[in-house]
Parts: sequence; structure tokens; C-alpha cells
Amino acid sequence: MNYILKNENAVYYECGFSCDNEVFLKLGSEAFFITDARYTTEASEVVKHAVVLEGDRRDLLKTVRLLIRKSGIKAIAYNPSEWSVDEFARLSNKLSITFQKKPNFSQQKRIIKSNAELNILRQAAKYGKDAFYRFGEFLQKDGLGIDEKMAHFEAEAIFKYHGQLGLSFSPIVAFGANAAKPHALPTTTQLIQNELVLLDAGVMYQRYCSDRTRTSSFGEYFGFEKEQIFSDGHRQKVYDTVLFAQEAAIKAAKVGVLANEIDKAAREVIEHAGFGKFFIHSTGHGVGLDIHELPVIGARSLTRIEENMVFTIEPGIYLPDEFGVRIEDTVIMTSKGAEVIG
Amino acid sequence: MNYILKNENAVYYECGFSCDNEVFLKLGSEAFFITDARYTTEASEVVKHAVVLEGDRRDLLKTVRLLIRKSGIKAIAYNPSEWSVDEFARLSNKLSITFQKKPNFSQQKRIIKSNAELNILRQAAKYGKDAFYRFGEFLQKDGLGIDEKMAHFEAEAIFKYHGQLGLSFSPIVAFGANAAKPHALPTTTQLIQNELVLLDAGVMYQRYCSDRTRTSSFGEYFGFEKEQIFSDGHRQKVYDTVLFAQEAAIKAAKVGVLANEIDKAAREVIEHAGFGKFFIHSTGHGVGLDIHELPVIGARSLTRIEENMVFTIEPGIYLPDEFGVRIEDTVIMTSKGAEVIG
Repeated sequence: MNYILKNENAVYYECGFSCDNEVFLKLGSEAFFITDARYTTEASEVVKHAVVLEGDRRDLLKTVRLLIRKSGIKAIAYNPSEWSVDEFARLSNKLSITFQKKPNFSQQKRIIKSNAELNILRQAAKYGKDAFYRFGEFLQKDGLGIDEKMAHFEAEAIFKYHGQLGLSFSPIVAFGANAAKPHALPTTTQLIQNELVLLDAGVMYQRYCSDRTRTSSFGEYFGFEKEQIFSDGHRQKVYDTVLFAQEAAIKAAKVGVLANEIDKAAREVIEHAGFGKFFIHSTGHGVGLDIHELPVIGARSLTRIEENMVFTIEPGIYLPDEFGVRIEDTVIMTSKGAEVIG
Repeated sequence: MNYILKNENAVYYECGFSCDNEVFLKLGSEAFFITDARYTTEASEVVKHAVVLEGDRRDLLKTVRLLIRKSGIKAIAYNPSEWSVDEFARLSNKLSITFQKKPNFSQQKRIIKSNAELNILRQAAKYGKDAFYRFGEFLQKDGLGIDEKMAHFEAEAIFKYHGQLGLSFSPIVAFGANAAKPHALPTTTQLIQNELVLLDAGVMYQRYCSDRTRTSSFGEYFGFEKEQIFSDGHRQKVYDTVLFAQEAAIKAAKVGVLANEIDKAAREVIEHAGFGKFFIHSTGHGVGLDIHELPVIGARSLTRIEENMVFTIEPGIYLPDEFGVRIEDTVIMTSKGAEVIG
């Protein structure tokens, strides 16, 4: 099968290298990694299973089109979300071959992780968990009165671990009412006693992502354990509902079920407690080189769950202008059930 | 004129708000901001000059297509680099209207800055300059022997100023030979006495970017002033050539000239000194909400320079495996000439 890739993680998966200007071409039994003069030295040393070619920095597609013409192929697969309308027009202009749309082409290939990938993902999850503890210690010591912006800044530094790790995404740190927004941006809201703290964060280790969320009550004994005591009964009820939902979904995750059955397990607990309309997102998503991969764990997802898939389980309840709770773990699907990593 | 926007900064410019899932539609005299349930609360409070509508998180285009159908318009402008092939297919499928390609549609609108924007850009530049001083102090005190990765980590923290500012891009910190790569990634090269230090960095303040580069010699009296004394005569010659080129380009920047005349002023100084083939990029670029905006200040740019354009002037000389020098300021074009900010 012939295919063309542009996405950095898709390319990395094929040949063990990527940079910010590249195209990967698979033409029959041959493979090519095309980049510009800034990267060819390093690419030549690192790229596996492909020939490294140097193109014009501003026009790699010239080299790509030439290779396609010379190969004599009739058809090539591409991912239509990797290409903008104008780039694709430049790529395909006057090439008399068929471009076959393959959405999620690379992510489909990557849905089952190898043992090497699982080991990296476990290590990433461990580093991510360690950072939760360090951030918890920071808040316990210096948290009172700091605002979300400062907390976000510290979270970034703590998760980067003196530059030794990357971030899988910019951490979400939200206090109280701001936690009711699933993708809250940091504000100048200050942290006070008994306030709710939501932390959703992950590291990137050897290019693979960790992803985890905890919600906690800020007070004398502060930490990101799953058991949390809130001074307010309403908050405690919401928190415990999310925790039960998360545990139910982890239990429901088994080889052979459909992804929507995992979602349903979480959603039923939340609906039963009367908060159904405040659980406004899917239960989870795949994790790997991308922070959001396949499978989708949602109400409409018909993916059959298989061994060595890796995904998050992260139900939440978001009460506008009040507060929000989300609890998230990343799991590896094993024949014995979901292994929570990190 | 009818148009559709997806890029976050393009949308922000229209209505004062943006998030990571949105479409902005201008249909005749009406404007719409379409987002999902995660953002509608905040959007309703902040969006100006547009009606906020809630769509399905995974299918905002359903709402967009409905609005387009109902409006009865015949044509709509879009930027072909904002849309991936599959998104555009979903948007345009079976809509019997004309989609007009307008590359750089929003950036063209934003090329002349308002007074409010100029004030924010001046403040951003000032904060950026302050961060150069703080990073200089850090290097003077603790710089000897640290590697580029650590320096990069510190630069990020210093430019973010305890989370009060964003970064307009990940800082470039390069020592010695690594500075010969215009977009150097940090390595484990350690900083030694008399080594050359290149810092290219900027902050983001109220969503607007600052951009500045200084090259300096590391030693007892270290700082990012434009006058630099190098112990090596060759380096001094290259440095002074870049500095003269930058001053010549700043002088050449006048209302009414073509952008390529500014580029030419810098390029001639460098060519005259015999380093022409080592100045491998354009002299500058516009700065605003995006770190790279219009106008392009390059050899082929025929943009007529107007009052209240904002752009960088940043010639450089890059001697492979030896070292590189770049000096960059951001300027506001005024009737009296280029005002260097920051």
C-alpha cells in the first residue's frame, strides 16, 4: 500500500524520527523521509526503514511530487485532516493518480501498543504521578492565597522537572467555580481554605504522553489521593458520584466489550445520581504519541476493545458557576482487565 | 462581504474572544460565534459584535451549515490554509454557494494596527525587554557551565514571569556553533568563558506578541546591550556587520517605501562585507496576535509600508559549524520613521 504522511507523530511511528518540516512517503516497498537542510544531518543518523532526502526548505512538495511521478504508482492513501486545502492542492495538482482518503490512517495503525510502547507509557505515567505528588506538596506548603495563574506556572515547572520531561499538554489547574469548565484557562482567582482544586496534567517521556486528573479539597491535609473529604455535603456527593462512576467504568473495561459499554457504565452512575446532564464529555480517549488517540470511549463509539489498547477513563460533573469534579486515570487493557498506570 | 474564520487569532480579532473549538461566521450584517457547551458560558460574557451559538462539540459545522443555508447567501470567503481537506469537505458538501479562497484573509485585515493594539504591543515589548535583562542577570550569576537545555528552561521561566505572561514562542537560546542554526534546538553544549550567546525570545501580553534577539559575548561583564566586545576579531567583524545592517534597515524603514527596500538596506551591508550568502532568511516579519504576521520584510516583498504597521528587523549571519549572529528589534512605523519598541 502506498501512503503519504505529514503529521510528526505519524512520521515518528514509521521511522523513529521527526522534525518540524518533513514528509514521509511509502511507495511500494520503498520509503522516503523528505526534509530540509536544517535537519538532514540528524535525520540521516536516526531515521530507520527509510531513505533520507533533502528538499527545498520552502517547497518539500516539489521533491515529493517528483518521487511520486517517478514511481509510476496509480494510487496513494493520505489522511485528509493532515493536509490543509491549499497544501493538498499543491501536492495533487496535475498528478494523474488517485488520492485515497484514509481518516485516522496512522492512529488506526497505532491503536494496539507494542510491549516497548507499553513500557514507555508505564514510565511516563509514573513520572506524571510523581509530579502530582510534588505539585501537591507545593500547594500544601505555599498554596494558600496563590492565584490560578501562579499555580499553573508552578505546575508547568514541576511537571517539566527541570527540563527533563516535556508536557503532554498545558496543565489545567482550576479552583472552585472555574473547575466547572472542563478546559478552564487560569484566572486570578485565589486559593482559599476548603476550596476545590482540579489538576489535569501529564508529562511527555520519550515522546509518549501521560494523562491524569485529580480533584481535591484544599485544607490542612492536602493531597491528590482518590479519597477526598469535603466540608460541604453537596460537594462530597458530587465527588463520590464521579469516583463511583470512574470505578464502574474501570471495572467495565474488558477485552471484547464495545467502547460505548465503558462509557455507559460511567454515565449510568452519574445519571442515577441525577447529574446526567452535567457530564458533558466522553468518558475517555486513547493515549500514546498523541495525547488524544484512538479508541474513543464515548456513547457512540463502536470500537471493540482489545488487549494492549491504552486509554483514559475520566468521567466528570460540571455544575456551572458552582464547581466541577473530574477523576481520570490512564489504563492498559490486559486479558485480566484494565491495569491503571501511574 | 461574507466570511468564515477558524483560526483562533483571526476569531479573537473579530470579537474579542476565542477558545479551541469555534467557528466565526459573518453573513451580511450578522455575525455568529459558534462553539460548544464547554465554552458558551464564558463566550456569552465576553464576545462582542457577534451572537454566541452552541453547537455539538464534535460537529460545530452542522450549526454552521444550517446558518449558511438559512442566510440565503451566494458566496463566502475562507482562508484555505485554515481548513484541512476533510473539514472543508464537510463544510462545503452539497452547499450550492461559492467558496472564495482568500489566503491570509485575516492577516491582511490586521496589517495596520489600531492605537489600542499599538499600546498593547508597546507594553508587550517592554515586558520582553525586561525579561532580557533578567535572563542576562541570571547568566552573569549562574551561567558558567550550564548547558543550553538548562538555559532554555530558565529562559522560559524568566519570560513567563511567574505565570503573569505567556510566551510568543519557545525561546531560542544558543551557544557558539549552535547559534549558526537560525532555529536551533537546545543541546547539552555547556557555556564557557568568551562563548557567544544568542537569545531570541518574546512574551505574549493580552494575546499580543513581543519579539527580540540579542547576541552577546559571555564573560565577566555580561549583558544584552547592542554594543558588544568580542575577544576574537573575526567574531567582532561579523557582529558589527550585522549591527550596521540592522541600523541601516531601521533607517530605511519609512512610510511609503516598499518592504523589499528595507530588506535591501540590510542585505547590502552584509553583502558588502562579504557575508551575503550567510544571511539565509528575510530581514523581518509583521508581529501582532500572531508572532509571524504581515508584512513580510523580504527581498521579494512588494508591500507598501504604511503608518502603524508593526514588524521586526532582524538580519543575521550564520557561519556553519562556527557561530551565528542575529540582532532583532520590533518597530512601529510612524510618520517620523521606525520607532523601536522594547
